[in-house]
Amino acid sequence: MSSTPNFPSSPYAPLQNDTFLRACLRQATDHTPVWLMRQAGRYLPEYCATRAKAGSFMGLATNRDYATEVTLQPLERYPLDAAILFSDILTVPDAMGLGLSFALGEGPRFATPVRDEAAVAALEVPDMNKLKYVFDAVTSIRKALNGRVPLIGFSGSPWTLACYMVEGKGSDDYRLVKTMLYQRPDLMHKMLAINADAIALYLNAQIDAGAQAVMVFDSWGGVLADGAFQEFSMAYTKRVLAQLQRTGVDGAIVPRLVFTKGGGLWLDEMGGLDCDELGLDWTVNLARARAQVGGAVGGPGKALQGNIDPNVLFAGPAHIQAQVRKVLDAFGKPHAASPDNPAQTGPAHIFNLGHGISQYTPPENVAVLVDEVHRYSRLLRA
Amino acid sequence: MSSTPNFPSSPYAPLQNDTFLRACLRQATDHTPVWLMRQAGRYLPEYCATRAKAGSFMGLATNRDYATEVTLQPLERYPLDAAILFSDILTVPDAMGLGLSFALGEGPRFATPVRDEAAVAALEVPDMNKLKYVFDAVTSIRKALNGRVPLIGFSGSPWTLACYMVEGKGSDDYRLVKTMLYQRPDLMHKMLAINADAIALYLNAQIDAGAQAVMVFDSWGGVLADGAFQEFSMAYTKRVLAQLQRTGVDGAIVPRLVFTKGGGLWLDEMGGLDCDELGLDWTVNLARARAQVGGAVGGPGKALQGNIDPNVLFAGPAHIQAQVRKVLDAFGKPHAASPDNPAQTGPAHIFNLGHGISQYTPPENVAVLVDEVHRYSRLLRA
Repeated sequence: MSSTPNFPSSPYAPLQNDTFLRACLRQATDHTPVWLMRQAGRYLPEYCATRAKAGSFMGLATNRDYATEVTLQPLERYPLDAAILFSDILTVPDAMGLGLSFALGEGPRFATPVRDEAAVAALEVPDMNKLKYVFDAVTSIRKALNGRVPLIGFSGSPWTLACYMVEGKGSDDYRLVKTMLYQRPDLMHKMLAINADAIALYLNAQIDAGAQAVMVFDSWGGVLADGAFQEFSMAYTKRVLAQLQRTGVDGAIVPRLVFTKGGGLWLDEMGGLDCDELGLDWTVNLARARAQVGGAVGGPGKALQGNIDPNVLFAGPAHIQAQVRKVLDAFGKPHAASPDNPAQTGPAHIFNLGHGISQYTPPENVAVLVDEVHRYSRLLRA
Repeated sequence: MSSTPNFPSSPYAPLQNDTFLRACLRQATDHTPVWLMRQAGRYLPEYCATRAKAGSFMGLATNRDYATEVTLQPLERYPLDAAILFSDILTVPDAMGLGLSFALGEGPRFATPVRDEAAVAALEVPDMNKLKYVFDAVTSIRKALNGRVPLIGFSGSPWTLACYMVEGKGSDDYRLVKTMLYQRPDLMHKMLAINADAIALYLNAQIDAGAQAVMVFDSWGGVLADGAFQEFSMAYTKRVLAQLQRTGVDGAIVPRLVFTKGGGLWLDEMGGLDCDELGLDWTVNLARARAQVGGAVGGPGKALQGNIDPNVLFAGPAHIQAQVRKVLDAFGKPHAASPDNPAQTGPAHIFNLGHGISQYTPPENVAVLVDEVHRYSRLLRA
């Protein structure tokens, strides 16, 4: 019996595999669900082919049909338990007018970074119509999935967007954004509040368009100092979460996921966030994380997502399988389904990488990983 | 009364400021000692001038007189409590024959990286004569210091050297070295054992040459997964520590410092290392770290070093001062000197950045930081 019933009014096909959504809500599942951050990406030749047709990354991301095509590609290859919208974390600042582009072989770049008081003063929550291409893609993907697995929508976190907005591109020292943070915390707070409100609108619109879970990627939260993380990243993730709709177009609960790369030291504090699931990178000990925030059977807590090192996928099949088992064993046995209360909560694990999959990953190795997660996690429950 | 007496047989001038060494040994000091990782570096115009004379980074590092000159430069500007040998962490693999070079504007690069079984099989602990230029520099600097402050020697950790040896240069994903780690752990262990033994010889030779403390920089330990860190980094740092001499040429104890960037999650385990002091980056909460491994008055424990974000130095003086106080307050009051037992141990803090100083740092801001550490840490003790 599913906890995410498909209401008669739903415009979408009934969900056939709700394992991921159940695990997010800390309900028992018969296997550990698995999906991979950046699972639709350059390691897949079919992705590269579609991107070549689209001409550019943004050409791909802004075209509903291409975005649908690449989102579904990894599901054709692997029995993944969730799909994630193909898009970029920087669509929101782009809609703010910063001019996002992707030069070939380089990361994202903004034409007009936000580096002074005037630039911050000019920032506004963008008109969501400018992001219609994203919501159209969500609806198109949801339809194309036809109930196969749930669709995750996402956004970068307020702080992560701010990093790119100030630096104008990727950085290895975050000098410009941290200079603003330390020198003009007032400007930084102003920017983060606008980002948070924009992200909340953006995620809610994704939910309205059909997203069945939403994830906040705090990719750069881990570069902050203790104290600064709480004030400049976590506080604004909280502001996003407080504004999120709790149910989707079909009336089902929409789990809220938060992933702070490098955030393991702040896990106790993140346990207080009003979200359903916390993502972990590979530096975190899953057993300890479970003890910290995983909660008890029947009680509250966070589902945990992660956390294998993506570089494991460069080893041979036997090594990959062994490392998969190590991660599943580290989390330990999830709680078992109670026949008379299938919605009972308890410690739950969603298998994922600790960061996005590398573009150099041999696609056949991903199949080994996914299969071993399914096989061994069933065994763990037996 | 100093706990680091200058023995009659010492060839060096008596130490005038032993605050750093005392703090490393968790003895009380009247202020919190401060030095900065990479304090002799590109942010100083006088450093750039010397480097220009030397022609290249390695020209600078391999010349005893230049190395002495640049090591002392920051001490001329700021009342720092320690000097650190000017050198590079990659001198040891260079001596192994890997061919280190520094292209202008780029990081280090090895001509012949270690990427297969044959290359690992060919690795050997290098003849320390090949590193004589380092030991000559140590002696020259120690003499030039003339007892002003103690001299810290250092090396990269076995794992950090392995990262560069396999990747051949800096990396943002550590794909090649981690592929070897996951696919051929036997090769990785072999390389790490050789590295550890070479590093131990290297540090002992620095001690013989006059180094008064030695530091192991595990700059890339934090990129490892939980479990892999313990097996491939910490275990080999331990192997280095086990081989280190405990006293220097003058009979004084030589404190052993270990810094794992991104290692905050493993602090409890690192508390078991046979070293005197642990370095922390800015993500670590100093109060919690003190509670974890700082020890009690009269008991064992680790001195803690760190951990301000180097980017604080891009803010204005008042902001820098406030952030310095925040770090000192986070550690809290160090234990007070006991009149009848000046060598009594207790929680001790050495102020430092959480990583190397940025080349873009305005030199005048460093003065603000150092002065505020001295001023406020005296106040804290009052």
